[in-house]
Amino acid sequence: MASGAVAIFGLGAMGAGMAGALLRAGLTTHGYDINADAVARFQAAGGATGSVEEVAETLDAVVVVVVNAAQTEAVLFGDNGIAAKLSAGTVVVACATVAPDVARDLAARCADLGLLYLDAPVSGGTIRAADGTLSILASGSRAAFAKAQPALDAMASQLFDLGDEVGAGSSMKAVNQMLVGIQIAAMGEALTFGMTQGVAPDKFLEIISQCAGTSWALESRAPHVIAGDYTPLSAVDIWLKDLGIVLDIAKGAKFGAPLTAAALQQYLAASGSGLGKEDDAAVAKVYARNAGLTLPGGE
Amino acid sequence: MASGAVAIFGLGAMGAGMAGALLRAGLTTHGYDINADAVARFQAAGGATGSVEEVAETLDAVVVVVVNAAQTEAVLFGDNGIAAKLSAGTVVVACATVAPDVARDLAARCADLGLLYLDAPVSGGTIRAADGTLSILASGSRAAFAKAQPALDAMASQLFDLGDEVGAGSSMKAVNQMLVGIQIAAMGEALTFGMTQGVAPDKFLEIISQCAGTSWALESRAPHVIAGDYTPLSAVDIWLKDLGIVLDIAKGAKFGAPLTAAALQQYLAASGSGLGKEDDAAVAKVYARNAGLTLPGGE
Repeated sequence: MASGAVAIFGLGAMGAGMAGALLRAGLTTHGYDINADAVARFQAAGGATGSVEEVAETLDAVVVVVVNAAQTEAVLFGDNGIAAKLSAGTVVVACATVAPDVARDLAARCADLGLLYLDAPVSGGTIRAADGTLSILASGSRAAFAKAQPALDAMASQLFDLGDEVGAGSSMKAVNQMLVGIQIAAMGEALTFGMTQGVAPDKFLEIISQCAGTSWALESRAPHVIAGDYTPLSAVDIWLKDLGIVLDIAKGAKFGAPLTAAALQQYLAASGSGLGKEDDAAVAKVYARNAGLTLPGGE
Repeated sequence: MASGAVAIFGLGAMGAGMAGALLRAGLTTHGYDINADAVARFQAAGGATGSVEEVAETLDAVVVVVVNAAQTEAVLFGDNGIAAKLSAGTVVVACATVAPDVARDLAARCADLGLLYLDAPVSGGTIRAADGTLSILASGSRAAFAKAQPALDAMASQLFDLGDEVGAGSSMKAVNQMLVGIQIAAMGEALTFGMTQGVAPDKFLEIISQCAGTSWALESRAPHVIAGDYTPLSAVDIWLKDLGIVLDIAKGAKFGAPLTAAALQQYLAASGSGLGKEDDAAVAKVYARNAGLTLPGGE
């Protein structure tokens, strides 16, 4: 008795935005979170009501937007997990950054229940989540893609189809996070190094963004340092998790990743010194502190 | 008796291209190099003749495109150095990547002889050098800029004016090289990490170039790995020099640069294992070798 309804599990910064995008696309959308206030806010904004038990069999798609593999596993297969309640043929759209092996394991356990599974990590941050313009790095069966299509169309402006094998999406996400994590830290390293040589942060951004040293990460994050605004669009602590996943995967493949490891140390220093909830551009503060520099905004 | 003539010292991969661009712009251009064949080739292509002694007093600008600070110093002030032979008011356009302190020292010594000095490191590689479309990160007096303008117009499509203080150009170049050096190594780390997870190199470039993990370095160098073509557009050994300069400057400022240091180790491993003269994308081979992977082209 599927009706085209969607349930989204996880109404944090990313999930709440994605849930809003699903609503705006006209999809009947249920939202769940351990935070009851987040659920109430979503229902006040038009989210569909009903307990998980009441709506489970009506769902075409379950979008899981939680922090990590353990939470994804708990939503699906934990005490009172959703997977056993769903109708056969429902698609699970798993958006958290997880190791490819985890994605394959979860997909196999869903298949045992007759469920489809789309390995669908997202990229783009909270603003694009709210706009329904995320990038999604997806892999899974053609049936899983087809069933998820209305939800994917609502949430993403760029859908990368990485083929039939669950795990390919998570692999590409890990590769992307490796690079973004390195390059945000490199922005912090280079911006503050420049300051020691008399290069002002705004001049750094103006010139380097036009030179070979530029990267998406630099153009995205250097403005936060220049503005002295560390409102977390993506927090320092995300990198402890994501680069941790990357290095776990790498270790499993006996792959040495020295730049990734060096970058993680800088995020650890940021988090350990109380900056974990700030925007990840705050990694620049670690460098500034160590070099006796004062960043814009006085830090 | 300045006549608008230019002399370029250093007819290597960069200098030969820049000399050609000066010629095409209609400037009387003399070319000098310790390699007599390079001089003969340039003169056959239209380069002006005459010994340094014969032409020195006719020059408006001397463009020095050698490998490092020691060679720049030798050209200007070594045995038979050019500086003492030039007319007062001639501008020295110093293009090598050098420490800002070196640039300031050379400029002061030029000033003692009545010469102008433009701190003018270049960016863009050999192809853009030959096309006359380099980026030049320049600083110096307004008089130095004015005197150098015809040569700058011929060599560069982007001239960044970093102000009156010699050293500012070299500082920004060091910042840029720090980022490019890190990001080429990061490309190698991520491309090969992806291979351990089943991400083919061409798929890596196709997808990541559209995601947050992208950088100029990645889009420039990943194609070399995918093609298995390590013809040196910029060689591995350039990074031993440039990241060495960056870390020397950083040490002088008591600035810790862990990502830069990690990247330099990868280039050292590449050079030490015989890849120093290959394109810098060959840093990927170090990762591949350590992980038991075979890159496109069989290496």
